[in-house]
Amino acid sequence: MKQCMELVRKTAPLVHNITNYVTVNDVANVLLACGGSPIMSDDEGDVEDITAICGGLNINIGTLNQRTIPSMFLAGKKAKELGHKVLLDPVGAGASSLRTETALKLMKEIPFDVIRGNISEIKTLAFGSGSTKGVDADVADAVTDETLTDTIAFAKDLAAKLHCIIAVTGAIDLVADRETCYVIRNGRPEMGRITGTGCQLSGLMTAFLVANSGNELKAAAAAVCAMGLAGEIGWSHMKPEDGNATYRNRIIDAIYHMDGEILEKGAKYEVR
Amino acid sequence: MKQCMELVRKTAPLVHNITNYVTVNDVANVLLACGGSPIMSDDEGDVEDITAICGGLNINIGTLNQRTIPSMFLAGKKAKELGHKVLLDPVGAGASSLRTETALKLMKEIPFDVIRGNISEIKTLAFGSGSTKGVDADVADAVTDETLTDTIAFAKDLAAKLHCIIAVTGAIDLVADRETCYVIRNGRPEMGRITGTGCQLSGLMTAFLVANSGNELKAAAAAVCAMGLAGEIGWSHMKPEDGNATYRNRIIDAIYHMDGEILEKGAKYEVR
Amino acid sequence: MKQCMELVRKTAPLVHNITNYVTVNDVANVLLACGGSPIMSDDEGDVEDITAICGGLNINIGTLNQRTIPSMFLAGKKAKELGHKVLLDPVGAGASSLRTETALKLMKEIPFDVIRGNISEIKTLAFGSGSTKGVDADVADAVTDETLTDTIAFAKDLAAKLHCIIAVTGAIDLVADRETCYVIRNGRPEMGRITGTGCQLSGLMTAFLVANSGNELKAAAAAVCAMGLAGEIGWSHMKPEDGNATYRNRIIDAIYHMDGEILEKGAKYEVR
Repeated sequence: MKQCMELVRKTAPLVHNITNYVTVNDVANVLLACGGSPIMSDDEGDVEDITAICGGLNINIGTLNQRTIPSMFLAGKKAKELGHKVLLDPVGAGASSLRTETALKLMKEIPFDVIRGNISEIKTLAFGSGSTKGVDADVADAVTDETLTDTIAFAKDLAAKLHCIIAVTGAIDLVADRETCYVIRNGRPEMGRITGTGCQLSGLMTAFLVANSGNELKAAAAAVCAMGLAGEIGWSHMKPEDGNATYRNRIIDAIYHMDGEILEKGAKYEVR
Repeated sequence: MKQCMELVRKTAPLVHNITNYVTVNDVANVLLACGGSPIMSDDEGDVEDITAICGGLNINIGTLNQRTIPSMFLAGKKAKELGHKVLLDPVGAGASSLRTETALKLMKEIPFDVIRGNISEIKTLAFGSGSTKGVDADVADAVTDETLTDTIAFAKDLAAKLHCIIAVTGAIDLVADRETCYVIRNGRPEMGRITGTGCQLSGLMTAFLVANSGNELKAAAAAVCAMGLAGEIGWSHMKPEDGNATYRNRIIDAIYHMDGEILEKGAKYEVR
Repeated sequence: MKQCMELVRKTAPLVHNITNYVTVNDVANVLLACGGSPIMSDDEGDVEDITAICGGLNINIGTLNQRTIPSMFLAGKKAKELGHKVLLDPVGAGASSLRTETALKLMKEIPFDVIRGNISEIKTLAFGSGSTKGVDADVADAVTDETLTDTIAFAKDLAAKLHCIIAVTGAIDLVADRETCYVIRNGRPEMGRITGTGCQLSGLMTAFLVANSGNELKAAAAAVCAMGLAGEIGWSHMKPEDGNATYRNRIIDAIYHMDGEILEKGAKYEVR
């Protein structure tokens, strides 16, 4: 974990984001906080040039539209041609046909390095349909200690089938390839009361992937630990009157101050 | 007021927002703060599916464009077909023909439950043209104690004519149907120095409407009181060096901590 | 400097922004903080009406696209016809063909009052191509004490050639017309770890230009000093756990509290 974070700070990866307009500012600031550098570009005439100068691409379908969907395909293909890391955040897959179908089509045409979503979104991608409650996971889908073993097997199987890393985030986070699964217990439930902690994690994770080429599974897991740990550290600085708006800032601030040692010490995970 | 707030926290209404990209993050966070759940979607191919899984729809024309205007009509009609609550925030009506005409056309085709704007925007909708100063009300239009009785009559008449609740917000806020008008005196003038307190209120109000079906007028008034009271509570936590950026966070934080009792105790209104 | 700031607070200039969706909320809040009033509008059918009621226009190409590029031309031409101040922020010029070409074409068709960018972006506009590292300046381009005299000459020459004020911002900021160059040393390096301080400055500067007609060079320099000084003041209020997200708020807060005297006293510049 330590080295994963240190390599991000050392190499300052440039990350191209095609992301939603709801949480885009927080995604940019968290990328700057971790030592990366963000650029946003979503026009068909712009994305290939922009992605070419970056090391990684973060595709988030949170406010996808007819203008930006073709840009996602163009940028994704270009980035993979160039050997860049590419991540998919299938926000709201299962909540609408357009989201589900776009995510499935993106997966078919672009060999993603990582797909990161909540359990309802990931199940939707695995089974082709789902019951995502808006942009939040369905309670019935939640990963708990009771369902953990099954969900680990599910994540590994899906990783094998899709030839990519699967990151399922929630109360318990799983980051799996076909053989290995990190089970991560950092974070706080109050993070779900802030818009965009998932989007931020996707941006952060893309930076970690770029900076840790050849060590992608651990890098993805390190990003999950970092975000959850930032949620814990940020919470420790909350005053009684602070709420979700201030908490949002404190989490990004905690990433800003996090180094490899803090992450190593605070990361709570097991490998299964 | 108490019960209106408690029902929001209890039922966690899912609110679909077609809103501007300036204040969208704050709208999402204030919806999460009050116990609701936000989803943003503005593509013609996406909005009907998304609105179908929600309980209410908040249409805000702050950065309307040729791509999103048809989505507003589609989503609004679908939402009403399904019996959902639908609110219109006519940002900048009176400041441009496109805004005025789009708002008027939306009102013609969609039976809104509530229209919420500043006095210049609402006058524009009533008279078909206006003199909105950008996105802020014209000083000449301001609701004062001198003009109060007339403005209450105006709001009730407009509510009768349009068959919906009219919420006029400013230094003094009015929330009226054809017979009854809540006159609300919560809030602080410094709220006008933050972008998006009006947009946030529209999001919040939609959640209150969804959670309080059959009691819409009071729910709309309760949302106005909650937002104004949050402005007062947030202000009480300001330090000398804090300005409008921090104040923005403190207001959302105050909503996060507000329960029915705090609202009941702090709401300042009379019914006319 | 003092009077430049006081005229902004006194006249409350209305500024039309066609800007990127990454930092738009901060641009709006900094405009409100300085005493101005922001309006965002980017649709071809809306921008001419909106710009007509404003005093100035801030065009920022940070997330330019096929829908908004024509709006930039329409709004820019209309604003100049009406004698308004118009500023160009060529975000990412040099990073993609679309950005470089759009900026160059805008410059050809619209007589901008000010062009404000980092040194890599400005060099790209001067030479027709460049090596901007995403949205940040290339380290090789940085303005230092060693390159200062040459860069001043470059800025003055470019101002003469383009008939506009050139503002090059970075560790040392230059604001030049053909004869005079303000060399400004306010600010802190940590401002580069926040997304959008440049975008905020462009919004702020447009308000200063509108409020100080006939005194544009000094007004543009005053805006640069104000933003840098806000970075210094904001930093002085940082606690050990605060990071870039909180710093962002503290900078806007510092603008909120800044008056002409604070600016006069804190501005660090020489005229060359």
